Parts: sequence; C-alpha cells; structure tokens
Amino acid sequence: MELNTMKDLFQHGIKDLYSAEEQIIKALPKMIEAASHEELRSALEEHLEVTKNQKKRLEEIGRDADFKLSGHKCKGMEGLIEEGEEILEEEADDDVRDAAIIAAAQRVEHYEIAGYGSTRNHARRLGMEDVARKLQETLDEEAEADEELTRIAESRVNVEATAR
Amino acid sequence: MELNTMKDLFQHGIKDLYSAEEQIIKALPKMIEAASHEELRSALEEHLEVTKNQKKRLEEIGRDADFKLSGHKCKGMEGLIEEGEEILEEEADDDVRDAAIIAAAQRVEHYEIAGYGSTRNHARRLGMEDVARKLQETLDEEAEADEELTRIAESRVNVEATAR
Repeated sequence: MELNTMKDLFQHGIKDLYSAEEQIIKALPKMIEAASHEELRSALEEHLEVTKNQKKRLEEIGRDADFKLSGHKCKGMEGLIEEGEEILEEEADDDVRDAAIIAAAQRVEHYEIAGYGSTRNHARRLGMEDVARKLQETLDEEAEADEELTRIAESRVNVEATAR
Repeated sequence: MELNTMKDLFQHGIKDLYSAEEQIIKALPKMIEAASHEELRSALEEHLEVTKNQKKRLEEIGRDADFKLSGHKCKGMEGLIEEGEEILEEEADDDVRDAAIIAAAQRVEHYEIAGYGSTRNHARRLGMEDVARKLQETLDEEAEADEELTRIAESRVNVEATAR
C-alpha cells in the first residue's frame, strides 16, 4: 500500500470495506445459529442478504474504476469478529447472549458506518459521484440495521435479559 | 467471563471499554506525532486529554459498583489500532496520510459510540441511572470528536490531499 494520492486512499478504503464485508458474510451465520430470539435471527438473516449485495456494489466499483479488490485484510473487522466470537464461546443465558450478540453486531455496523462515510467523502472529492451514491446506499442500510438492532434490544431482548 | 445475567453483560461492557480507552491512550501519541496539519494535531491532543478523563469515569463506575476493571483485553480495539498503525508505516504524502489518520480515528470513535451506547442501555435496564448518565457524557464527547474530525477533513485535509 502506498498513500501518495487521494486516489490511493480511496482504493485502500474500498479494499478495506471489501475485506470487511467478506469477513462479515463468513461470521454472520455463526451469530444467527447462536441467537435465540426469532426476531433477532430473522433480522440477522435479512442483514446477511443485504451484506451480500453490499459486497456486489463494491465489486462493481472496483470493475468500473479498474482496480483489484483482493489482497488486503481488514484488521479492524478481524478484531471485531474475534470479539463477537468470544461471546459465543461463553457460558451464557440465552437472553443475555442475545443482548451480547446485538452489542457485538452494533460494533460491526458502526465500523462500517465510519468506513463507508469516510470513503464516500473521498469519492466525492475525486468527483466520482456515481461511486459516492453507491457508498451512500450502503451507508443508509448500515444505519438502518443499527437502528433495527437497537429496537429489538430495547423492545424485548434487554428487557428479558434483565429479568434473569 | 460468564454471561448469566444482565449485570454480567454490563460489567463485561465496562471492562471492554476500559481496555479500549487504555489502548487508545497508548496509541494516540503516535498518531499525533505522525499528523502534519496543526489543526488535526491539536484536535487529537485535546482528545487524548478527554480520553484520560473518560478512563477515570470508568474507574469511578468500577469503584462504585465494586468490580475489577482489569483482566480483559478489547480485541476489537486491538484490531482497529493495528489497522491505524499500518497507515503510519506506509510511504505516504503528508496530506493524504492526515486524511487516512482521520479515517482511522473515526473508526475508533465509532467503536466507542456503539460500545458506550449499548452499555448505557444495559445500565439503564439495571436501574443504574448515575452510571447511565456518566456513560452518556462520554458518548456525547465521542460523537463530538467524530463530528470535529469530519469538519477538519472536509474543510481542509481532504481538499489538500485531493490536490496531490
């Protein structure tokens, strides 16, 4: 990686997000399997499909701007997923584990909110309006997923976990 | 770690944030040293002081609720900081490196926004209103830091980096 120009930084950002999405697609099924509340499971299942589409959007960006997406591992997402998997290994009450899964998933969402936000701004600076619009679409989806997880936690999971 | 009750999850959340703050306090001076724009350096320096105070708030929470904060390493923050340090090792233009430092710092801020948000909600469920207020104070500071970094990026650093 070299960071001599804003174009370098933009491409690095896209590769980083691509690696992050790949890691999320691999990790989410384990989270879904471990979740007990049906509402949480189906929200995570839906998010897995949304994530696959977000990965495709990044592939389109790489194709249109003619650069390779592979070859970079997002260390930030690696740590976040390791942290999430620690939870699944612990002795836990089902409701409390679900509350913990939500907290871990929201850390993942926020990584993406920060990453897509910065990279969209870099794309705009480079005059890549179409790319910026695609990144904004994903950013909106991540923000929605984060809000939905808060809703599930506060309407039900955290309430039931506290009754333990 | 066991997650049998919401209290377990709350204490785990506080320990995780404590480890995150400790790691940030250690990493920020390297970021400050590598930054070229005076405005960015002073924003990061100010945030280092704010972070030290956030760590103290967590120590107060641990003392008042009578549990130990040490003994847990936040893997999520470990990955985020590793990612930030990768940037500092790269061959880079000064302005582009500053834009990359901002993007890395905003990923860190967003980890904390997610972590403090969840843990504040858990504290509220447990009826710990004083604790929830302390966590909200830090949450507000993190959101402010994130906005300030966007302002510095968009008003100056990203503009100059794109001219390279």
